[in-house]
Amino acid sequence: MSQRNPIHCQALKIEHPSSLSVGQKFQLDDVIEAQQFDRDTLSAIFQVTREMENIEKNSPGSQLLKGYLMATLFYEPSTRTRLSFESAMKRLGGEVLTTENAREFSSAAKGETLEDTIRTVEGYSDIIVMRHFESGAARRAAATAGIPIINAGDGPGQHPTQALLDVYTIEREIGKLDGIKVGLVGDLANGRTVRSLAYLLAKYNDVKIYFVSPDVVKMKDDIKSYLTSMGVEWEESADLMEVASECDVLYQTRIQKERFGERIDQYEEARGKFIINKDVLKAMKKHAVVMHPLPRLDEIAVDVDSDPRAAYFRQAKNGLYIRMALLKLLLVGW
Amino acid sequence: MSQRNPIHCQALKIEHPSSLSVGQKFQLDDVIEAQQFDRDTLSAIFQVTREMENIEKNSPGSQLLKGYLMATLFYEPSTRTRLSFESAMKRLGGEVLTTENAREFSSAAKGETLEDTIRTVEGYSDIIVMRHFESGAARRAAATAGIPIINAGDGPGQHPTQALLDVYTIEREIGKLDGIKVGLVGDLANGRTVRSLAYLLAKYNDVKIYFVSPDVVKMKDDIKSYLTSMGVEWEESADLMEVASECDVLYQTRIQKERFGERIDQYEEARGKFIINKDVLKAMKKHAVVMHPLPRLDEIAVDVDSDPRAAYFRQAKNGLYIRMALLKLLLVGW
Amino acid sequence: MSQRNPIHCQALKIEHPSSLSVGQKFQLDDVIEAQQFDRDTLSAIFQVTREMENIEKNSPGSQLLKGYLMATLFYEPSTRTRLSFESAMKRLGGEVLTTENAREFSSAAKGETLEDTIRTVEGYSDIIVMRHFESGAARRAAATAGIPIINAGDGPGQHPTQALLDVYTIEREIGKLDGIKVGLVGDLANGRTVRSLAYLLAKYNDVKIYFVSPDVVKMKDDIKSYLTSMGVEWEESADLMEVASECDVLYQTRIQKERFGERIDQYEEARGKFIINKDVLKAMKKHAVVMHPLPRLDEIAVDVDSDPRAAYFRQAKNGLYIRMALLKLLLVGW
Repeated sequence: MSQRNPIHCQALKIEHPSSLSVGQKFQLDDVIEAQQFDRDTLSAIFQVTREMENIEKNSPGSQLLKGYLMATLFYEPSTRTRLSFESAMKRLGGEVLTTENAREFSSAAKGETLEDTIRTVEGYSDIIVMRHFESGAARRAAATAGIPIINAGDGPGQHPTQALLDVYTIEREIGKLDGIKVGLVGDLANGRTVRSLAYLLAKYNDVKIYFVSPDVVKMKDDIKSYLTSMGVEWEESADLMEVASECDVLYQTRIQKERFGERIDQYEEARGKFIINKDVLKAMKKHAVVMHPLPRLDEIAVDVDSDPRAAYFRQAKNGLYIRMALLKLLLVGW
Repeated sequence: MSQRNPIHCQALKIEHPSSLSVGQKFQLDDVIEAQQFDRDTLSAIFQVTREMENIEKNSPGSQLLKGYLMATLFYEPSTRTRLSFESAMKRLGGEVLTTENAREFSSAAKGETLEDTIRTVEGYSDIIVMRHFESGAARRAAATAGIPIINAGDGPGQHPTQALLDVYTIEREIGKLDGIKVGLVGDLANGRTVRSLAYLLAKYNDVKIYFVSPDVVKMKDDIKSYLTSMGVEWEESADLMEVASECDVLYQTRIQKERFGERIDQYEEARGKFIINKDVLKAMKKHAVVMHPLPRLDEIAVDVDSDPRAAYFRQAKNGLYIRMALLKLLLVGW
Repeated sequence: MSQRNPIHCQALKIEHPSSLSVGQKFQLDDVIEAQQFDRDTLSAIFQVTREMENIEKNSPGSQLLKGYLMATLFYEPSTRTRLSFESAMKRLGGEVLTTENAREFSSAAKGETLEDTIRTVEGYSDIIVMRHFESGAARRAAATAGIPIINAGDGPGQHPTQALLDVYTIEREIGKLDGIKVGLVGDLANGRTVRSLAYLLAKYNDVKIYFVSPDVVKMKDDIKSYLTSMGVEWEESADLMEVASECDVLYQTRIQKERFGERIDQYEEARGKFIINKDVLKAMKKHAVVMHPLPRLDEIAVDVDSDPRAAYFRQAKNGLYIRMALLKLLLVGW
């Protein structure tokens, strides 16, 4: 929202975050990046998210956002994310204006700036959910808009609602965040998901992170240094079975073919290296879970789906609840 | 819906279908193919459809599906069918999540299976209306989903709601289905519409079907054999005027250019052969009607539109009522 | 709407328009072209528009169109206009069926006539908002449809709701329409916006219009002759500062690159000629305003935005209120 100080991405503007409790109003203006949330804010958001899980059809809660209008301004298509947000808005009684591919916006094609588009669209709606191909676009939109902006992914930048739903899912499935052990598997170099997750996990105590990835897509040094500086224990491993036996959460990701260009041989080698299958399940603890941001190809075998520890579809569903919570918080407050 | 027996396409699971009456609950899980409906189920659905015609704006009936969310998952565009379903849902107070072209779904493009997509989308909605380019896709979706699936056309396979609205229109316009004479005209080889219609008509008594088509697009032997096995009288004719004078219903279809490839000459010849115009109208009985699944090109002359026997736009409107009835039955039951 | 006399575009069918007052019912059937509105109708529409500005969330007014369904049938994309109409409908409690790109309509692609498409879509909705690439398409649709049609732009033809919102904005910002001085700047040859605006301004008394444009895109003679015949004073000027100092409204428009073909040099020359910047603002009167139909490129400098006389984003917002008023008038009357 406009007319705020430059570090407007600090969701929490009170002096003593530890005194935060639901019921006490604090301001959530926009959702721009995972880093804007501190531990107390996350905890408060997750409490609201939990309430969202229990809203029943045609109950008073299902009308919380009646009369509110959300515009989904997607400069690149992402049907899954768009449907999740639109479902969230409608489950709370709100309405939606949809743009499936705003890049072909006649006005954008004619050279209109993002700022002008935002000023126009904010005249038609109460909140804007934006996906863009450029890193930083969401922040620019928020600096212009007088209504809340939610970043639904801006290029190689951030996808904060994915990060929130991942952490929520871990807490929901494992029952805690302090003291957990998480194995991040697959493409750790290019996936913004695992990078954001690592960042958020660093806010909790006694967390241990394992990196399991083909050499060509290893976790980059910036995250490793960050974790070290935050006192988070981490290690790299090439032994998926060993890591599986240690972890509470095995977070698998897709090896992204588009990152390999013409090196199809490298892609094929990387892709087959760390598959989660029944054997891996056997090595895992009883209470542990497998997560994945979806879509998946064959990095998780289909016969894993029927195991109760396969949490990825529940994880996707949690995305709905997280987005319901954020829409509620941004539009009507705590 | 999942966890059901393999022949889940049997809509009717009671022992004595003849005892069926509206008010008595029987289960309609999914709408996958025309064959799943027997005569009693059709009759019951048509009774609900008739009620849908009389629902007025802002009446209690117009809120029957309040709080329910339908996802339209269209892997190929079909604006007409999509709008019809979305109108049906909204006329009953329900809400809609739209995907105009799910084939370009980022996740489908990345190689996600249909099953995974369904598992995600069912987390966001209460019912999925799906159009797909592959025969059998709707059945696969229904085998996966825990919520109802409606097949809105799967490639060369089925388009059951079109078949239902056709039969409903005949009953609505002529007043009966037993004993009727129907002329199927045009492209009988490629049109899934006429094939499904022939299949459904075979469930009624003393039906006679005439096939009137250019030689290159004649009705295929499988349907002819099926009709014979069911005791349905049929004949082929090249005399449209003669057939027109005999029939209760003249069901015209479009000759599909795309089926002829480079044989434009054959297309042009086939296309002009059996046009319904004022002369044909003159030959028809007073109570008879002209039907067409639309869109039409010039196989029905425009000046036929003003004749009260031109039923094709009423037929399109009946599609709305049939879809309202199916949505109601699948979501809240009888 | 069908079954009306050929000059159905006369919105006002009463003998003594001067006796018109809101509360008295007169018929608005369709919105096809700016010329259909006379001064009294405009005044009445603007009065309703003003009421629309004051409708609050979840007030009774916000439910005026509950139960009504609007279809947006866009044969070419125009996200801005589409969102404005859809927001208007939803702000009044109505529902929307969307077609972002009806040109790719499977049925249109197969050769269906506009008339047949309209007959089908009117079965699904209560009002159709149509954008088309062909001049006259909206009139053809209105001649066919039994429900109201709103023209949201038909090719080089008309865009009447833009014209209405422009005039409304002038009255809203300046407080009057009689006696105003308006400078039309930029591409006056190709912009349908300024042509419609000139046409509507001619209905008021003592209006003076200045044309300020590069030579290659000067206002055409038909409008000049029309203004003269209506007794409207006009002059051409190459001195933007002089005009700025005289006017109540400076209406800037974008030089449309696509009109210059390969003559990029001409485009570049035309484009930089009449920029509205801080210097121009200084020359302007205190009460005067800058308007623009948007999107803008650099024909208005960004640092003008913060001046209270920059009215273009308020103007865009007024488009929402005008469309709310028209939807109300067409669906439920005065």
